[in-house]
Amino acid sequence: MPDAYEPTERTVPTRSRDRAAYDHELVHSILDEAYVCHLGFVRDGAPVVLPTLFARVDDHLYIHGSTGSRPLRMAGEADLGLDVCLTVTHVDGLVLARSAFHHSINYRSVVVHGTAHQVTDPAEKRTALDALVDSVVRGRSLDSRPANPKELAATAVLRLTLTEVSAKLRTGGPSDDPEDVELPYWTGVVPLTTGQGTPIPAADLDDSIGVPGYLTGA
Amino acid sequence: MPDAYEPTERTVPTRSRDRAAYDHELVHSILDEAYVCHLGFVRDGAPVVLPTLFARVDDHLYIHGSTGSRPLRMAGEADLGLDVCLTVTHVDGLVLARSAFHHSINYRSVVVHGTAHQVTDPAEKRTALDALVDSVVRGRSLDSRPANPKELAATAVLRLTLTEVSAKLRTGGPSDDPEDVELPYWTGVVPLTTGQGTPIPAADLDDSIGVPGYLTGA
Repeated sequence: MPDAYEPTERTVPTRSRDRAAYDHELVHSILDEAYVCHLGFVRDGAPVVLPTLFARVDDHLYIHGSTGSRPLRMAGEADLGLDVCLTVTHVDGLVLARSAFHHSINYRSVVVHGTAHQVTDPAEKRTALDALVDSVVRGRSLDSRPANPKELAATAVLRLTLTEVSAKLRTGGPSDDPEDVELPYWTGVVPLTTGQGTPIPAADLDDSIGVPGYLTGA
Repeated sequence: MPDAYEPTERTVPTRSRDRAAYDHELVHSILDEAYVCHLGFVRDGAPVVLPTLFARVDDHLYIHGSTGSRPLRMAGEADLGLDVCLTVTHVDGLVLARSAFHHSINYRSVVVHGTAHQVTDPAEKRTALDALVDSVVRGRSLDSRPANPKELAATAVLRLTLTEVSAKLRTGGPSDDPEDVELPYWTGVVPLTTGQGTPIPAADLDDSIGVPGYLTGA
C-alpha cells in the first residue's frame, strides 16, 4: 500500500500547487484533529453544505444522523450511494503582510471526494458509532452506555472511503513583494489557539462521580 | 425591512427545528466571528466544498480569489452566476451524555443558499477587498498598502446576498433519557476555547515598528 493518495484531476489545485499534499499521515492527522467536517452534496441540482460530526477508522470516514435526515435518506434511497465532498479545515494563524493583497490565513485543510454508502453490516455500524463517540472524546465509548437496538435502528451511518483525497496547507510568515519591504506597516503572523475549558458537570450529576481522566489528561 | 430572514423549504431543517433561527443579528454575529467559510458548488454534477476567507458588508457576503481559481472562473463564465451554499460553523463545546446516543456538540452554524455573482463595479470591489482584509484583522485595511491596479486585475470578487439564510445552534447540557440518569458515568459539557497567541513579527520587520493596537487590544 502506498503511503500517499494518488492525485487526480480534482485533487490537484489550479493554484498554489506547492500547498497541496497527499501523504497519508498528514491527511489523517488533519482529519483526526477535527470535531466536525463540512459535508457537501447535491440536492435538486443545487449544492448543500452541512456541518456534521465525523470519525475516521483506517481509510474510512463515518458520519451519522437520524434515518430521517436529508443526506442520510438520500444515500439510503439511491443504491448507488450519494456523491459527496467532505472538507475539514483548521485555521492556524492570521497572516498580516504589508500589502492588502498578500494578507492570508495559515491553515490546514483536507478535501475528500467520493461516494458515501449506507453502512448495513451491524458490526461495522457498531464500530462506526463507537468511533463517532471517541471522536468527541477519545476513550469515551468505553465509559458510556452503548446504543440499544431502538437507538441503532433510528441511526443511519454513512461510509466514505479515503481514495480521492488531498490536503492543502499554508504555513509560515507573510510574503510581501520586494518593493514593499520598506513600507511602515507591522507585518507578521498572529497565531490562533484552541483549547478546552474546565468541564462543566450536568446539573443532575451525582456528586460522587468525579471528572474522568480522559478529560483532565490525568 | 424585517429583522429576520424568511424561512424557505431549504432553510427549515427536517430535524431539530427548535435549533433553527433566522434572526438577522444572530446570523450576522455567527458570520462575523468566523475567518473562513466552506463554499459549496457543483462542478460536472458533483459537489465541491472549499474553505475560503469571506467578509460581510451589510446583507452581502464577499469572497475573493485569483481570476484563475475554479469557482471564481465558473461564476464569471456563466452570466447567471454560480449556485453556491456557503456555510460557517463554530464548535463551542463537547456534550458528554451518559448514553453514547445522546453525545453531541454545542455549535453555532449559518447556512446561506444563493447565487454568487462576480463584482464588476470598481468601487464595490474596493469595498469588498477592504472588508476581506478587515475580516482577518479589524482595522487592518487602513494600516496596509491597498491593492494596486495589477493586483485588482488579478483578483476576482464574488458577491452572495443574504436572502435564503438560516442559523442553527445547540447550547446547554446533555439531555439523557430519564432511565439513564442513575448510570455511573460522568456527564456534562467540555467548553472549547479559541484565542490569539502573541503576534510573531516577520523576520524582515524593522525593529522600530511596534505591534499595533488593533492586535494588542490597546
